[in-house]
Amino acid sequence: MNNFNFCRPTDFYFGRGVENDAGEICKKHGAKKVLIHFGGGSAIKSGLLDKVEASLDKAGISHLRLGGVKPNPRAELVYEGIELCRKEGVDTVLAVGGGSVIDSSKAICNGVKYDGDFWDFHMGGVIPKDSLTLGCVLTIAAAGSEGSNSCVINKVIDGVVKKKGCNCQCNVPDFAIMDPELTTTLPPYQTACGACDIMCHVMERYFTNTKDVELTDGLCEGVLRTMVAMIPRVMSDPKDYEARANIMWASTMAHNNICGVDREQDWGSHRIEQELSAFYDCAHGAGLAVVMPAWMECVMEHDVMRFAQFANRVFGISVDFEHPQRTAKAGIAALRALWKSAGLPLNFEELGAKREDIPVLVDHLVKDDKTEGHFVIMDGPFITKVLEHAADYRD
Amino acid sequence: MNNFNFCRPTDFYFGRGVENDAGEICKKHGAKKVLIHFGGGSAIKSGLLDKVEASLDKAGISHLRLGGVKPNPRAELVYEGIELCRKEGVDTVLAVGGGSVIDSSKAICNGVKYDGDFWDFHMGGVIPKDSLTLGCVLTIAAAGSEGSNSCVINKVIDGVVKKKGCNCQCNVPDFAIMDPELTTTLPPYQTACGACDIMCHVMERYFTNTKDVELTDGLCEGVLRTMVAMIPRVMSDPKDYEARANIMWASTMAHNNICGVDREQDWGSHRIEQELSAFYDCAHGAGLAVVMPAWMECVMEHDVMRFAQFANRVFGISVDFEHPQRTAKAGIAALRALWKSAGLPLNFEELGAKREDIPVLVDHLVKDDKTEGHFVIMDGPFITKVLEHAADYRD
Repeated sequence: MNNFNFCRPTDFYFGRGVENDAGEICKKHGAKKVLIHFGGGSAIKSGLLDKVEASLDKAGISHLRLGGVKPNPRAELVYEGIELCRKEGVDTVLAVGGGSVIDSSKAICNGVKYDGDFWDFHMGGVIPKDSLTLGCVLTIAAAGSEGSNSCVINKVIDGVVKKKGCNCQCNVPDFAIMDPELTTTLPPYQTACGACDIMCHVMERYFTNTKDVELTDGLCEGVLRTMVAMIPRVMSDPKDYEARANIMWASTMAHNNICGVDREQDWGSHRIEQELSAFYDCAHGAGLAVVMPAWMECVMEHDVMRFAQFANRVFGISVDFEHPQRTAKAGIAALRALWKSAGLPLNFEELGAKREDIPVLVDHLVKDDKTEGHFVIMDGPFITKVLEHAADYRD
Repeated sequence: MNNFNFCRPTDFYFGRGVENDAGEICKKHGAKKVLIHFGGGSAIKSGLLDKVEASLDKAGISHLRLGGVKPNPRAELVYEGIELCRKEGVDTVLAVGGGSVIDSSKAICNGVKYDGDFWDFHMGGVIPKDSLTLGCVLTIAAAGSEGSNSCVINKVIDGVVKKKGCNCQCNVPDFAIMDPELTTTLPPYQTACGACDIMCHVMERYFTNTKDVELTDGLCEGVLRTMVAMIPRVMSDPKDYEARANIMWASTMAHNNICGVDREQDWGSHRIEQELSAFYDCAHGAGLAVVMPAWMECVMEHDVMRFAQFANRVFGISVDFEHPQRTAKAGIAALRALWKSAGLPLNFEELGAKREDIPVLVDHLVKDDKTEGHFVIMDGPFITKVLEHAADYRD
């Protein structure tokens, strides 16, 4: 077990109807002027934005809107948000949406309190020291951004989309409002992509070289088993509130780092996927469904017993003590079968990616002899192998 | 799943040697004058207090000492601490010890900022609104007070010891410094009592009537399985750092409520045990080892399948699908066997309690027709049955 620091002060409000308390919750956190940041029209059409604004009005808090956040959120809107907050004297950003909206809001909150270009935080080396108050009304269970310290933004530089993360304490939201009922109207594909993202956040932590991490292994396995049980429920009945609720809280537990505090984590699959979604503008969860199992096959031999543990404890697969490799492989197969049943892509063709783009994708990742991953350190040829596996996989 | 609010802002520093950063951590949390609150001589003899003071000196923070906290901490010392903090202008209390020292510190922090008698908070109805900054250097894994919102204090009223808890947000420590190595010198009995307390904190949450709590069930089971694996390790080799580390972080996860946010919780066994430890001044964990399995036997028929789930998922006992009662009973037997192997008492005689005291103990608990517990609501006769079970149990 490694030494660690862990601090996740987010004030969570979870359950049916909690979005109606948005005003009182903002007030408790000192809000006087709120920027409501959101994506497309669904927050308007569903009436959620009206509810939130009514609640803010009731609490006597003034507010303004900034919509237009796209999946894989762009830097341009962050700059616009920063300028708007400064001009209007906003003290609190309330993200109404999913991971993209929350990440865009995080970047705005950090940028307002910084003299330079917020993109500095994403290029590394500069860490945000202060930020506006950040809250969210979550509308999709996926990124875990509502309780995480991470923020991923896309910026076009020299004609190429750069997708860059920034992890820091300032990114941890001050409060999160989570009503699982808001997710019952999501299209099945978005639900599935979110569920895949949640599982991958745990698996990036689960596959580690750190020894004696029984407790956090147990927490990881608990979250993963929940997802294995809930994905079929929610795919067959999107209105299943209890399944939605378990998945929504799992999204937070998967990525607030209680599952990974004490260990070396991998994140190689996420880094590879970030190139895919930056290049093809595909859904992050869909890209992960293609990359992660391919990565697992390529690194399995590094620690067969850990993969056997995954198969046994997460999918309940009996251990073949004579041939643990068979157990390990059965775990990966079970994962693919689960994701396939949820309608997720499992290879390049299903994702809309092209095998011939692999050299370009790899080149973005490993220029200047950079490597990715920790469980197994991946250089260019290794990442090529993973992507070829992902491209060529057939049922 | 029930609606909930969850906010645990504690800043945790975990691992080898972190106590040497106490000064810097106090400084980060704004400390200028620190009261170091501790128990008996062990913190002095081990050199821990010197280390902490050296670290505070290095950070330029002035400090004073208040020792003398006993297990089942008393109100008298809390009053003394409140007066001392006011007189000396203390802004931060640093608890160096276990649950009793931290609880005494919590009561002091709340009391200093309150005009009335701090005991009001423990009699119910009055909730602390403000408190001094509270940090701790943990020396035993047990109560989980380092990350919990609870605080239990004893006060002698009309010749009878009253043990009363207070749960509130002000009780959540601002920071916690946790070096598992500090626990490697604990006597085996204290280690075992702590481990039992940790398991019971989870089980009080696990046995619930709330349905569809798969995720938190999974977290509970992860913590419990870790304890099942680590207790034999630490009893056979007290210097096993990795086992100590898993147990120490388990103590926090068991009681910061991530395992129970979304459900009705029981707490009947804890309430019954509080009477035992107030009456006999026995160790809390030892009292729980006697009460909890007796309680389990008395309530098992209320939800046999949940006890079968406990047996299967925590102890890996094969499910007897034809007779799930047998599986359920085997789980309780496995729990007793684990605790016995750790040297814990399993009945009144081994605890030093007397069967003839049962009417007095029950009378303290249920006067004015009060009941205890939620999984099964217990009146006087039911609690009598539990205590008689606990008194009469033989291997």
